[in-house]
Amino acid sequence: MSIRIITISREFGSGGRSIAELVAKELGFAFYDKALIAKAAERTGFAESFIKEHGEQRGPNNLFSLPFASSTYNGMSTEDYLWSMQRSIILELADKAPCVIVGRCSDYILRNRKDAFHVFIHANHEDRAERVVNQYGVQTNNPLKTINEEDKKRRKNYRYYTDREWGAADNYNVSLDSSLFGIEGTADLIIQMARDLGVAEGEGPAADPEE
Amino acid sequence: MSIRIITISREFGSGGRSIAELVAKELGFAFYDKALIAKAAERTGFAESFIKEHGEQRGPNNLFSLPFASSTYNGMSTEDYLWSMQRSIILELADKAPCVIVGRCSDYILRNRKDAFHVFIHANHEDRAERVVNQYGVQTNNPLKTINEEDKKRRKNYRYYTDREWGAADNYNVSLDSSLFGIEGTADLIIQMARDLGVAEGEGPAADPEE
Repeated sequence: MSIRIITISREFGSGGRSIAELVAKELGFAFYDKALIAKAAERTGFAESFIKEHGEQRGPNNLFSLPFASSTYNGMSTEDYLWSMQRSIILELADKAPCVIVGRCSDYILRNRKDAFHVFIHANHEDRAERVVNQYGVQTNNPLKTINEEDKKRRKNYRYYTDREWGAADNYNVSLDSSLFGIEGTADLIIQMARDLGVAEGEGPAADPEE
Repeated sequence: MSIRIITISREFGSGGRSIAELVAKELGFAFYDKALIAKAAERTGFAESFIKEHGEQRGPNNLFSLPFASSTYNGMSTEDYLWSMQRSIILELADKAPCVIVGRCSDYILRNRKDAFHVFIHANHEDRAERVVNQYGVQTNNPLKTINEEDKKRRKNYRYYTDREWGAADNYNVSLDSSLFGIEGTADLIIQMARDLGVAEGEGPAADPEE
């Protein structure tokens, strides 16, 4: 079996997106994070900023999930509609060319594909707080609280759509602590594992110039 | 920092114990699984079979946790007593020499040691069922049920003593799917990661001849 798809799920502030980008670049895989958002925006008509905010969040605390906000899509809530659209896009992209896909329950959506390798990236709270403030530029007086809230949202969203626990080791082929291995070190481990398993290298397009 | 301790937590039937043994042998680390049970037996006076059965299980469904069974140890239940003894033994062993420790919440007990590397091994249900029957020789008509029950017990025990979720990727530095990487492949990955991080190799005694 040759790995054609790598899904990278990640804790907020773990550096998972940067790691995913390094992996895609090195393997010559397409890189889908913002590109996926853009595609969803195009297909749904929502703004990219709206999709970025709501594409991985779902739960009773969220106004958009309430029925009164949902009548336009055959009784579907906005997020359920977004989930459904993102799911189709992920399935389509996975069929197209070797790629790295960040988040959006892609590990679950592609769980039955034999050519997919599923990765989870986590880090300690201190490193995540530091990264969120200094690298992502998030404005917050309490970064640890911000992180915990984001974890909670992702967990809720994941449980709602997959009936599985977000961040449970069992969902992924490998879970890595980027605090211990570093951003480049973690990317190197994933690249090496994929190569050892056999990767459809070079078949894909160059990584999207997303930054 | 040099890795002196590797804790290997594992799903029942994932081959985690065999993997741990390979890692210990290759790195020249002491291997503590049965040796730990023997030590706990010596110190508590319980039979090894009793410790094997109860040393990783605790929960409301377990008779031994009921107060009426616990009066002999200052009001402590048998399992709480066993937990406490196993905890001291793990802390002592970790101080002594480079070692690989299997299960028994050792990841939690040694969570603050900078020289510890924490690993979780999981596998898919089919492979675990096959291993439990054909390699561990467990007598069962329904191996999938046996596995789920064992998972449930470990989860309950872990949550009770650590207030954390068993098998959550966050608890470990790396979690690996032995179904994908194979037993030797998984061991090789752990050995290589430890060496990359810097390992106190060769300092330890030869692995205990536990088999």
